[in-house]
Amino acid sequence: MKKIRAAIVGYGNIGSYVLEALQAAPDFEVAGVVRRDATNVPAELKDYVVVSDIAQIKDVDVAILCTPTRSVESYASKILAMGINTVDSFDIHTEISGLHKRLGEVAKKHGKVSVISAGWDPGSDSVVRALLEACAPKGITYTNFGPGMSMGHTVAVKAVEGVKAALSMTIPVGTGIHRRMVYVELKEGYDFKQVAEAIKTDPYFVHDETHVMQVACVDNLKDMGHGVNLVRKGVSGKTQNQLFEFDMKINNPALTGQILVATARASMKQQPGCYTLIEIPVIDMLYGDREELIKHLV
Amino acid sequence: MKKIRAAIVGYGNIGSYVLEALQAAPDFEVAGVVRRDATNVPAELKDYVVVSDIAQIKDVDVAILCTPTRSVESYASKILAMGINTVDSFDIHTEISGLHKRLGEVAKKHGKVSVISAGWDPGSDSVVRALLEACAPKGITYTNFGPGMSMGHTVAVKAVEGVKAALSMTIPVGTGIHRRMVYVELKEGYDFKQVAEAIKTDPYFVHDETHVMQVACVDNLKDMGHGVNLVRKGVSGKTQNQLFEFDMKINNPALTGQILVATARASMKQQPGCYTLIEIPVIDMLYGDREELIKHLV
Repeated sequence: MKKIRAAIVGYGNIGSYVLEALQAAPDFEVAGVVRRDATNVPAELKDYVVVSDIAQIKDVDVAILCTPTRSVESYASKILAMGINTVDSFDIHTEISGLHKRLGEVAKKHGKVSVISAGWDPGSDSVVRALLEACAPKGITYTNFGPGMSMGHTVAVKAVEGVKAALSMTIPVGTGIHRRMVYVELKEGYDFKQVAEAIKTDPYFVHDETHVMQVACVDNLKDMGHGVNLVRKGVSGKTQNQLFEFDMKINNPALTGQILVATARASMKQQPGCYTLIEIPVIDMLYGDREELIKHLV
Repeated sequence: MKKIRAAIVGYGNIGSYVLEALQAAPDFEVAGVVRRDATNVPAELKDYVVVSDIAQIKDVDVAILCTPTRSVESYASKILAMGINTVDSFDIHTEISGLHKRLGEVAKKHGKVSVISAGWDPGSDSVVRALLEACAPKGITYTNFGPGMSMGHTVAVKAVEGVKAALSMTIPVGTGIHRRMVYVELKEGYDFKQVAEAIKTDPYFVHDETHVMQVACVDNLKDMGHGVNLVRKGVSGKTQNQLFEFDMKINNPALTGQILVATARASMKQQPGCYTLIEIPVIDMLYGDREELIKHLV
């Protein structure tokens, strides 16, 4: 069996979990790892090609983008133009549609496949949401996140003057409403009350119930666990009160890394273009013989 | 917008819920209803074409097969050969793979699409199972059914000598194990103990914990509610203990009818061949503009 040669582009938290998922997948081989400083080679990368430009890696089938969300588009455009598929976990919900259109043009022009927003939300949760709309076209879906760390909110807190270290936890209170629990270490000479007030009035927090707490060491509180509780109550045909619920409690970057790898596999089976996960048959994400998968899963 | 013209083939319990789902769908029109006795026209079919042979209905795009599972293959083969797509909720798990292969040949030969086993299990549950394997490739999935009526087990009880009417309820006890609660009305002159023993030793029941109860009126106990609790604990990459759970409490034939209609829609967007739901992009099951769906769901 010819293995799929995948490059990891960006080697932070997600990148290191993508490496583990690639190592665990029987049909992949790690073509190489791309990082800004290619001389920075941690122990687990010793046996791999580590470079600062993907052009230095031979025969890459698919690039798994583990860069910050904001730089996904420029990496994807450049890499698609090199004749390499791309997958990413772009997570700014309001900008997915535009990215989809723009990368679609690039991907088609170069006869390659780009799958975007292939983490867990957007990503696997999106597939569940779409499936539940097929099951009950009328109704409301609530996606409740957490408890878990919000990267975006944590970054917003860190930008507040006087904050030395921060952690913003997302706590689900139901029907898609979330409470923010913010833990901060202060820089010397700052007043906690003033800092707390600045956080609560920040645009990221002003619409949510927010509690700010001062702690001695934020790092001691950090845990990469996260959760989702996705609920739909709706109408199948003309029948009311159809009840659906999806729950997960997971290591956040581990799940993202795994889904990126499954999506990289699926990218090899699509026609040129840009896709989100709801546009891809789920079976294409799985390793193994197609008929055996149907026997086992359907 | 040209509407999709769907024929309902077989008008029992599922057929009547398919009618409601078609009436509720903005992009469908009911081309007609096929039933063995076309003179049997209940009030809700008064405005529709009711015939005994689908050949008597004009311009059918897709036939939704609501016949007994055992007759799906012969109907599908015949209707595909007429140049009409078919969808069904064929539910004998061990025979899906064979049906898939055989109808695949027929469908391709006639340039049409057949989607099989498109109810909720097999069906939407299969999509969830496949998605969870993509999220955590190693691990165990348990599908727990009920509480709800099992058609197959109820039919098996009815075949036991001395049974006048019966209902077999499936009760989940976790990890894919089920208890059978069997309610029977007896024919005159039969001994309850002997009948109960015959049921418990029937191949359908001998491996499960089974309780048999005598009641005055089985019909008073019937309710079409059903449920699923689908659990997976597995490994994403090398990270253990990833926890997933999917739950639903639904009107059984209403959900089957709705999924059949969503699948009929999806059948219009596939290349010729036979598919199960895990082989179809979930977005194809949904009504509406593709970009809007991506904005709303991803």
